[in-house]
Amino acid sequence: MHEIGFIRDLAMVMIVAGATTILFQRLRQPVLLGYILAGVLIGPHTPGMLVADPRAIDDISNLGVVLLMFTLGLEFSVRKLREVGIGVLAVALGEVGLMLWIGYGIGGLFGWSGMDALFLGAIISLSSTMVATRTLSESGQRHRPFAQLVVGLLVAEDMLAIVMLTLLTAVAIGGSVQAETALALVGHLGLFIVVGMILGLLLLPRLVDYVAGFGGDETLLVSVLGICFGASLFAAWMGFSVALGAFLAGAVVAESRSVARVLHLVEPLRDMFAALFFVAIGLKIDPSMLLQYALPALLVAVVVIVGKTLACSLGVFVTGHDPRIALRTGLGMAQIGEFSFVIATLGLSLGVISDFIYPITVAVSVLCMATSPYLNRSADALTDGLRRLTPRPVRLVATSYSGWLENLKPVSENAAIAAIFRRLLWHIAINVLLVVTLFVIGAYVNGQSWSWFSMLGIDRDLRHTLIWACALFLSLPMLIAIYRKAEALGMLLAELGIRERFAGAYTQAIRNVLARVIPLVTLLALAVLVSALGSAILPPRGIAMSLIVVGIVLAVVLWRSLVKMHARLQAALKETLDKPPLPGGGSD
Amino acid sequence: MHEIGFIRDLAMVMIVAGATTILFQRLRQPVLLGYILAGVLIGPHTPGMLVADPRAIDDISNLGVVLLMFTLGLEFSVRKLREVGIGVLAVALGEVGLMLWIGYGIGGLFGWSGMDALFLGAIISLSSTMVATRTLSESGQRHRPFAQLVVGLLVAEDMLAIVMLTLLTAVAIGGSVQAETALALVGHLGLFIVVGMILGLLLLPRLVDYVAGFGGDETLLVSVLGICFGASLFAAWMGFSVALGAFLAGAVVAESRSVARVLHLVEPLRDMFAALFFVAIGLKIDPSMLLQYALPALLVAVVVIVGKTLACSLGVFVTGHDPRIALRTGLGMAQIGEFSFVIATLGLSLGVISDFIYPITVAVSVLCMATSPYLNRSADALTDGLRRLTPRPVRLVATSYSGWLENLKPVSENAAIAAIFRRLLWHIAINVLLVVTLFVIGAYVNGQSWSWFSMLGIDRDLRHTLIWACALFLSLPMLIAIYRKAEALGMLLAELGIRERFAGAYTQAIRNVLARVIPLVTLLALAVLVSALGSAILPPRGIAMSLIVVGIVLAVVLWRSLVKMHARLQAALKETLDKPPLPGGGSD
Repeated sequence: MHEIGFIRDLAMVMIVAGATTILFQRLRQPVLLGYILAGVLIGPHTPGMLVADPRAIDDISNLGVVLLMFTLGLEFSVRKLREVGIGVLAVALGEVGLMLWIGYGIGGLFGWSGMDALFLGAIISLSSTMVATRTLSESGQRHRPFAQLVVGLLVAEDMLAIVMLTLLTAVAIGGSVQAETALALVGHLGLFIVVGMILGLLLLPRLVDYVAGFGGDETLLVSVLGICFGASLFAAWMGFSVALGAFLAGAVVAESRSVARVLHLVEPLRDMFAALFFVAIGLKIDPSMLLQYALPALLVAVVVIVGKTLACSLGVFVTGHDPRIALRTGLGMAQIGEFSFVIATLGLSLGVISDFIYPITVAVSVLCMATSPYLNRSADALTDGLRRLTPRPVRLVATSYSGWLENLKPVSENAAIAAIFRRLLWHIAINVLLVVTLFVIGAYVNGQSWSWFSMLGIDRDLRHTLIWACALFLSLPMLIAIYRKAEALGMLLAELGIRERFAGAYTQAIRNVLARVIPLVTLLALAVLVSALGSAILPPRGIAMSLIVVGIVLAVVLWRSLVKMHARLQAALKETLDKPPLPGGGSD
Repeated sequence: MHEIGFIRDLAMVMIVAGATTILFQRLRQPVLLGYILAGVLIGPHTPGMLVADPRAIDDISNLGVVLLMFTLGLEFSVRKLREVGIGVLAVALGEVGLMLWIGYGIGGLFGWSGMDALFLGAIISLSSTMVATRTLSESGQRHRPFAQLVVGLLVAEDMLAIVMLTLLTAVAIGGSVQAETALALVGHLGLFIVVGMILGLLLLPRLVDYVAGFGGDETLLVSVLGICFGASLFAAWMGFSVALGAFLAGAVVAESRSVARVLHLVEPLRDMFAALFFVAIGLKIDPSMLLQYALPALLVAVVVIVGKTLACSLGVFVTGHDPRIALRTGLGMAQIGEFSFVIATLGLSLGVISDFIYPITVAVSVLCMATSPYLNRSADALTDGLRRLTPRPVRLVATSYSGWLENLKPVSENAAIAAIFRRLLWHIAINVLLVVTLFVIGAYVNGQSWSWFSMLGIDRDLRHTLIWACALFLSLPMLIAIYRKAEALGMLLAELGIRERFAGAYTQAIRNVLARVIPLVTLLALAVLVSALGSAILPPRGIAMSLIVVGIVLAVVLWRSLVKMHARLQAALKETLDKPPLPGGGSD
């Protein structure tokens, strides 16, 4: 009656989505594909024109992006990233880089502008978590070994997607690709992510668990949504995309003990808004434009399917997996999806790409989605076919490569030492990050609230001294921890590096020297780090020196209690990430 | 970055809602109250102005109304309505009528226009399901006897609210209160509800169960949302409110076997949009306007609290409950809420009420919400206080009334007969409704698709004949069932009504006559009903007569199979409403 317009359009979308989900589920086709097609069908470009004003739906689907990214983050989690392993990260990096390059090249071949080509590259470089995981669960293969690899690759790609979104924004606004600005931006982004993650990890999981402790489902849901939107807004305010903020919020909340309950509550929201998001994509499509660009779209789709399959398969094989598993993993990654749409929308809304990029993106993703279940079903036949087609020498080389890799795997004793080694390095890295965080916050406080300081009658020098001293003294526990880990590292290296058969009688002496040198070098490096970090807020030299002396005296005097304090802080972080424990956790 | 506007406002609302829900939960205050206050705080009328454009939020909160009504419907369900009992229905009707009248009177006292006064009456007549049930669950009293009465009254009020929404729309559009149009409208509404419910009950629960059978949570959720929005759209298209459609859809889906799963999936959506809905209410409020109308608001709030408490308590006591339980029930009903906002918004958007009604509604509901937990906590003290204050004679009368009611309760044998009697009447009523439904659909088909008929070369008379014959023949199983139930009713009445001590030797004869007369009268009434219903589509008289003859012959010849067919249809409905079975189900 009175709410017509908006509710009417929304209702049309939900009705069509409801019918589609039933139909496509029955036909055993990907439901997301159905949503997009339904959107095209009821869109303003189709005669009949059931949805009058797609802009309102667009607002809603923007809201969908935030919720989608938040749940992706919830399922991402820092823990999973660590489980992924360095090999998978390398494969993802190589594959995304390759596809980016191929996409850019194809754009050039078509005679498109540099920006169009760049965006095409970005669009086809990222596989779709939603499509891939659905294909896996719909075929009941979620727990097979290759599925774990697919999920690992997707997690790694999610991370790269975040970097890419930020870079593309900068490039689009700057108008060209400059190495320096790009590097500065990646640095800026990295800092934001690290600082955000560490502060977030210390605060948010506790907050969520606290709320989950006394609150009902409603309280928990609404406060988690508050966190999600708060992080999105914060990211937007710092100059990043809302998608990034929502994703990070999800990744942080994923470390709370109540994550299963949160995921359970957020899932219906995600499902509803995902349906709206994909129908909205269809709504934006003019079928006649699709026809016009059918040929490039088809070509790009073939490139995506073949390119992604080959790149991922090869990567997975090279990092030491069975060829059959490698091919299955590659086939599982052969599509593009939600990130591609987010990137295309970004390009359109910044006005830097041509109008035809969007329909091509949709067409390619539709083609990939449609083939995805068939590729998955015919994986075994494909493997057998490929094996038969492969010339014998190639097969021999592959087999011997696998055998060689198998021999390379560390034996148990070395593996244990390597694990301790990795732990120590991780622990040092995290503590360095914490110190960096403290100084960055100090520099930020210095930059923001000086009027407030001058109101209190504090001049510039005194302000610098105060902030710098705070950052330094707060860093003391971390600095001590770094020193102690460096000591342990030194001893380990001395033990491993200096073998008796080489050094003979001097073995012990050399070991002692090495075990002392490493912590000393670390100390020096720390001093340089602290001064570099504090350069913006460094007090006059004399004061700085005396502060450092005070710091060292404090460190020595309070050594035991600072070690305890650090242990408590570490326990807090470890508790958040409790199983498996934080690397290095519990080693002192 | 690029989605700023809308997402920014929405994010502000969600952040504030998140903080509020935690704070108010901890302070043990009603969370809904917190949402409204938070809305006022960040609204455009408060300096600081955190939310720039409340209209976008308004769109979202309209969507919230649909979801809110749908979940209210899900928790309503036909089954619960039948469990409520006639007593509770009467109490609700009396109380709502009284409050409507009082509100109208107060409006007159304030010197407001008739429309303002009428809307005020409507606004204060309906208690808030959300506030009342939350107060009950937050104080852990959900399963106490008085809580059952509160929930029953709320269910009955939900029904009245639907009627009121429709009537107010008509009155507002018509500009005045005319008895005839109101009656016609209620008839129209009743028909819509009954036809919608019966068709819905036959189709939708099956559809939902079918989808629940093969689909995952996402498929189920999206298709249920499709049903919800589809029903809303259909209601709007038929000239009713979207709220009505959503509520009916919920009530119908509530009869599916998977209702618990559906409710579980829809709850997070409801919680999110309820938060948005109540914050949006706060956003619309100008605090200075609240101050200006503080006095009338305070007065109305006192009237709501005292009036609703007294009316409900008295009603519950009169229908045979302990005074303590009656007072607790009354206190549980002493607030207004979501329906009041829906009604106030309706008035505003139709432009028939003054601007100050909305802030007064908000102020009154805020005051009621704030007092609600205290009223609930002090219920025992209040009861004792009232008991001490009551003069002795009044207490004596009350006690003897309770005793008298206790004696009135039917003894077991009579109760069993009364139950059979009620069942038969219910069954007849439902079958009559089904016949009416068929003819209404016939009339509708006749009205809509005549161009399609004429394309097939069917003229007006033939069309009427065809439709009428279809409706008649499809009604045959129901007509036979009605006749058979009427026979049973006649026998029962004869047995009960003609006692041997009055009729002596003629007892049997009189009983036989009565047992024949009642089905005959029913048959006659049916014939009148069918012709009245078919008047719009009645074929030429000769054809009609011969069709009726054919119908009768068919009925006699196919009696057994038609009885079987009806049993199957009844079983289908009964299965939908399976525990407890449909009244009259299984009696033949």
